[in-house]
Amino acid sequence: MNIPKSHPRYLSLQIREKLVKGFENNLVAKEGLLAHGRGEAFDYIIGEKTSKFAKQAIKSAANMLNYAQNSVISVNGNFAALCSKEIIQLAKSTNSKIEVNLFYSSEKRKKAITKILKESGAREILGIDKKSSTKLVGIDSARRMVDKNGIFSADVVLVPLEDGDRTIALKKAKKKIITFDLNPLSRTAQTADITIIDNVTRAMKLLVIESKKKSKKHQTYNNKKNLKMAILEIRKNLERRAKSV
Amino acid sequence: MNIPKSHPRYLSLQIREKLVKGFENNLVAKEGLLAHGRGEAFDYIIGEKTSKFAKQAIKSAANMLNYAQNSVISVNGNFAALCSKEIIQLAKSTNSKIEVNLFYSSEKRKKAITKILKESGAREILGIDKKSSTKLVGIDSARRMVDKNGIFSADVVLVPLEDGDRTIALKKAKKKIITFDLNPLSRTAQTADITIIDNVTRAMKLLVIESKKKSKKHQTYNNKKNLKMAILEIRKNLERRAKSV
Repeated sequence: MNIPKSHPRYLSLQIREKLVKGFENNLVAKEGLLAHGRGEAFDYIIGEKTSKFAKQAIKSAANMLNYAQNSVISVNGNFAALCSKEIIQLAKSTNSKIEVNLFYSSEKRKKAITKILKESGAREILGIDKKSSTKLVGIDSARRMVDKNGIFSADVVLVPLEDGDRTIALKKAKKKIITFDLNPLSRTAQTADITIIDNVTRAMKLLVIESKKKSKKHQTYNNKKNLKMAILEIRKNLERRAKSV
Repeated sequence: MNIPKSHPRYLSLQIREKLVKGFENNLVAKEGLLAHGRGEAFDYIIGEKTSKFAKQAIKSAANMLNYAQNSVISVNGNFAALCSKEIIQLAKSTNSKIEVNLFYSSEKRKKAITKILKESGAREILGIDKKSSTKLVGIDSARRMVDKNGIFSADVVLVPLEDGDRTIALKKAKKKIITFDLNPLSRTAQTADITIIDNVTRAMKLLVIESKKKSKKHQTYNNKKNLKMAILEIRKNLERRAKSV
């Protein structure tokens, strides 16, 4: 369907159509469409822009990736559909591995995701070869598969839009977690070491830029404080908008 | 996939699976999955319960439907997938017509929606016969089709989860609008005469109960005030939750 440019949700609807196209190309799961919808709602009340606190989180994330021993970018269908180019750029600039890792596992989707990543310039893609797959502890079977050479042996993992149970399992496995999550109240947001409260399409572009700056190692970032700022920002936005109702 | 009962989002995930099933049965559009995701996010920050202000809106909606000359319940795929029984019950108790009316029009979906409504006990279903379709003024062509004997000639229309442009077009056509919308900031929420800020699966059950009470006609309801209360309630919830981060 043709959405007119005058529609106030035009930009958001454009990203949505990209997701829908990703669904049609077998990249995105049905549940991925729903998850994107939740993100849209949180982006909406955040104001659909990258906030100061998100920029701070992005800087710290770039730094953590640059100083990791063995960093891995975990890729699901939504992430691949929206950011395949930036994933490759970030992997190169931070010397990170790429692992396809799905919440709703499916060989068909894994293949489609691998294809788009290769088309965008990826060389090695982990998470595909069953021989190197192994299990995370503390999570039910369907969702615990990871790659021995990827997430399993990583010190830092970048996970997009992740399920809470899985983030907690990764933390138990002593990984440092960087995540994109537009909901500052989610378990993933609250469990990760660095939570980037921003639309992944905006944040990934900035993260690539920051990762190329190769700043000195710093560790002053406070995720709890950052989350609180995000929640208060939303609250402020709502207050402002309540006045204009 | 089997979601364990211990998952904190279990109930919400159950409703989500119902939507996904509706999608597989051709009731729900891809965009409907996304729209549901947005609703999930707003329901989450509202607290996933029917608030006092939603109960007030539901009472007034029941009253408005009971005293309408010619009320119509507009049904889309999500509404049919989640509430087909309640739609029939409400149509009976308020003597309302039922019209299948889609944002993303599709004959296949119309047929699937008609089927589930008939299975749930509907007799007459409008919006199907092309001979009686006509156009709303002030909205682009793909989205303006309504039934001459349904929405076009109605004085009161109940629309679920509606697009803002369409709600505005319905208002211009002098309809009284009752809507379900979990986002108190949306144009639909702010344009409607009565906005029920609640999950449609909870609110429809209550609306059916209220509509059977046949209360005296009253018109003291203030939608702007109700929306402000909803926004402030969300703000309060966020404040409370920010403290526990």
